[in-house]
Amino acid sequence: MTYSKLVKNAVGRLVPTIINGEEHTPFLGVGKYKPEGNRYAPKLQTNADFPLDGNKQVSNLKEALVKSGLRDGMTISTHHHFRNGDLIANHIFDIAKELGIKNLRWFPSASFPCHEHLVQYLEDGTICHIEGSMNGPLGKYTSEGKMNGTAILRSHGGRYQAVQDGEVKIDIAVIGAGTADAFGNANGVEGSSASGLLGFALADSQYADKVIMVTDNLVPFPCIPWQIQGNYVDYTVVMDKVGVPERIISGTTQITKSPDRLYLAELTADFCDATGIIREGFSFQAGAGGTSLAVGQYFAEKMRAKGIKARFARGGSNKYLVEMLEEGLVDYILDGQTFDLEGVRSMKDNANHVMTSPFTSYNYHSKGNFAGLVDVVILGATEVDVNFNANVVTHSDGQLLHGLGGWSNCLFSKTVILPVPLFRDRIPVVVDEVTTICGPGELIDVIVTERGIAINPLRTDLIEKAKNSNLPIKTIHELKAEAEKICGKPQKPSLEENIIAAIKWVDGTVIDVVRQIKK
Amino acid sequence: MTYSKLVKNAVGRLVPTIINGEEHTPFLGVGKYKPEGNRYAPKLQTNADFPLDGNKQVSNLKEALVKSGLRDGMTISTHHHFRNGDLIANHIFDIAKELGIKNLRWFPSASFPCHEHLVQYLEDGTICHIEGSMNGPLGKYTSEGKMNGTAILRSHGGRYQAVQDGEVKIDIAVIGAGTADAFGNANGVEGSSASGLLGFALADSQYADKVIMVTDNLVPFPCIPWQIQGNYVDYTVVMDKVGVPERIISGTTQITKSPDRLYLAELTADFCDATGIIREGFSFQAGAGGTSLAVGQYFAEKMRAKGIKARFARGGSNKYLVEMLEEGLVDYILDGQTFDLEGVRSMKDNANHVMTSPFTSYNYHSKGNFAGLVDVVILGATEVDVNFNANVVTHSDGQLLHGLGGWSNCLFSKTVILPVPLFRDRIPVVVDEVTTICGPGELIDVIVTERGIAINPLRTDLIEKAKNSNLPIKTIHELKAEAEKICGKPQKPSLEENIIAAIKWVDGTVIDVVRQIKK
Repeated sequence: MTYSKLVKNAVGRLVPTIINGEEHTPFLGVGKYKPEGNRYAPKLQTNADFPLDGNKQVSNLKEALVKSGLRDGMTISTHHHFRNGDLIANHIFDIAKELGIKNLRWFPSASFPCHEHLVQYLEDGTICHIEGSMNGPLGKYTSEGKMNGTAILRSHGGRYQAVQDGEVKIDIAVIGAGTADAFGNANGVEGSSASGLLGFALADSQYADKVIMVTDNLVPFPCIPWQIQGNYVDYTVVMDKVGVPERIISGTTQITKSPDRLYLAELTADFCDATGIIREGFSFQAGAGGTSLAVGQYFAEKMRAKGIKARFARGGSNKYLVEMLEEGLVDYILDGQTFDLEGVRSMKDNANHVMTSPFTSYNYHSKGNFAGLVDVVILGATEVDVNFNANVVTHSDGQLLHGLGGWSNCLFSKTVILPVPLFRDRIPVVVDEVTTICGPGELIDVIVTERGIAINPLRTDLIEKAKNSNLPIKTIHELKAEAEKICGKPQKPSLEENIIAAIKWVDGTVIDVVRQIKK
Repeated sequence: MTYSKLVKNAVGRLVPTIINGEEHTPFLGVGKYKPEGNRYAPKLQTNADFPLDGNKQVSNLKEALVKSGLRDGMTISTHHHFRNGDLIANHIFDIAKELGIKNLRWFPSASFPCHEHLVQYLEDGTICHIEGSMNGPLGKYTSEGKMNGTAILRSHGGRYQAVQDGEVKIDIAVIGAGTADAFGNANGVEGSSASGLLGFALADSQYADKVIMVTDNLVPFPCIPWQIQGNYVDYTVVMDKVGVPERIISGTTQITKSPDRLYLAELTADFCDATGIIREGFSFQAGAGGTSLAVGQYFAEKMRAKGIKARFARGGSNKYLVEMLEEGLVDYILDGQTFDLEGVRSMKDNANHVMTSPFTSYNYHSKGNFAGLVDVVILGATEVDVNFNANVVTHSDGQLLHGLGGWSNCLFSKTVILPVPLFRDRIPVVVDEVTTICGPGELIDVIVTERGIAINPLRTDLIEKAKNSNLPIKTIHELKAEAEKICGKPQKPSLEENIIAAIKWVDGTVIDVVRQIKK
């Protein structure tokens, strides 16, 4: 789609004000957009319209969808806790196809390679377009300009915000759960399709017009814990299998063995140590990538040596974090998703392994969230530029291949560190200008590369603290120059005018767009 | 206040359609009222208006109230988890008085004798009127026609419904908590003012314009569990003491020693046994009165004898219920409030002692609630009439002395049993017509008295099952006749025309009114 009207936003990117026929606000700067109006208000319900004995079970998903009034043009939401093992989203659209329904908007919290099955429905018009992070094949499909309409990528918190604010109205939410009761209470900690949590479906349960709970492990009421409350659920459905266990969560998570990435991790931990971030009662968040896992291990070593502990660690949880919890190095894990079986086990066994949701952790349109309370967060990026702006969704060739996840939300932590290689496949990671701005540089504090650490000039406190360390502190321009010296000046990606996706900031404003790849 | 327009509702009571200047719907029959419109939608907030580090603490409650914009005519809500040990409500209105604020509506989930302090503010106009269950002195004050405006009594679920539906808009909610962090996460399981739960404040936190969290035990983030989520909180305040521990919860709960009441309890349990209600996987709810506690003990005996267990018991929890949980006689306690220290201890220690809220358990304007899933509920009543209508708020002399609590909500359980003495102080309990209808007879199944058991004619299944037992089954008319034979025909209470309180049904309609007592 080409856009008649593009305006320059607060980070200098040209973005449309109308996307898929609806108005959107360009990014105005961090904390500048003040939402007006009220939370989205779902229709009032009455118990009189629901079975008094609480049994909401219907015979199958098709019946539930038909009873929910599935029709052309609706918005259907799913969550991604089953990751690449999800069997539900494909099933929904197979049914929609069978029923001859057209023009649906799919609103997943993320899509995975297993959803390549849906390309046929994008092509035949069953699905109009997708709003949600697109990992892999659907991202590629979209990058090639093949999807009708424009993709809209939101962070985990931004998705909650969009639903809460009524920016996205969900007609039917289909929520898969490892375990549920017939009333619709559900959790992800039990059952053969256990996914640990169901928090990404929280907004869907609270705000969707109709909510269908699907499980392959129905238990007698009450399903405890109820991560999703049955009081929001219209119908429950039992399927043979809601997910492929080995694709839902990896049996084990592995720390990187790459010496380069281990060095990055160690350098990151050394930086945190030297600048006083690792101290009694501190808090941290690291992702599930190999480097991030290694950072946690270096943190643990330093904490043992100092005889201190952390007050809390934010998950995505994994066996290394669970070990730290069980060793007493952290008081609490505040978890948003479990990345391996040990995470699921710990969430079940440990009262101080606590489930969170995009509402508690990341929703920007509330009276505060948890992100700002985290002392240090370790994140990834595909590119960083000399203004510390960072990209996490596109590669340097312009391909849209990743979602935002909680990345944008985490930028509000007290210190944000991006450990990144200076280049990948001889393409610089530190560049003049990132292909896609996902987060503004003012919130990104430290870039750790194997050839030096750059501190954002805004963080004079960190610069001061790092001054007398033996850390390899450089400027971001020095890092960029080194990268270009080795790899040469990188080429700009070759792109069409056509905008294929919009990237939302945490407050619902448009921070950047992604354009179609040239053949 | 006298009302120009009264209409006869579905249980034949004359009720006003305008109360305190606002429109209300007369009771239309169980399940007949269909709400229109949408949930109340609070104003959108942005993190940008809140401290990024999550520290929302201000120096005292007065500052928090002033910052919250306290002014004439506002609605101020509190919860009653501190019961007769509450120190917060009185403090709020002392501050309001000091600031010269007038005409406030106090919207507690219940009031207790400790709130007699507030009579002076009802008299000087600081408080306009109270909407909430009124136990003791404030009930008496209201009964005497001294309060401006009309009291409105709601059940626990009805209070949630009224807030959710926007029938009551809370300007400032002040939530006292045994433990909280500076972000506003809070619970009632820890601290010297532990009250077990904070569920009665859930609606207030979710829907009030401003939310103030008050605690005497501030802990570092995160306060776990967060029964109230800090994401809803505007300000946190630390007070020296939020409650008087020994009045918040009794150290111990005692089973009745009265042979009459023990007999009632035993007869109730025998009835449940004979009619097949006590069976593997059943569920029950009994209150915290001495008789109800005894019923639980008789249930336990029968379960041990049969070698069966209950799937769940609804709380209010107490040491007897906790013993059953820990003995393995019940899989789960689904708790709404803890009545003694053992309840608090168990909620902290036992993962299968689960907190619920008026939303999950009782909200009638949702897609179902828990009440209908309970096999049998044992409730009290001040009066029952020959149509099985029951009264729980006024005495036979017309005095308004009790709140509804969860009573109305529990009537949706599969079998509702009221064990009541046939007379109290030589005044019959089974009468021609109850003084105040709180629950319609069609939902009340069995009246157990020391002189016989009456089964509602609608419950032909129970009548059939009880037929060949040796239970003393009688008709309700026989019971009434016996009562009158002993006590004489009871006198109608001596009442003025003036309506001093409205009694709400679970769907927000007006089921009855309470009139002023004649001097």
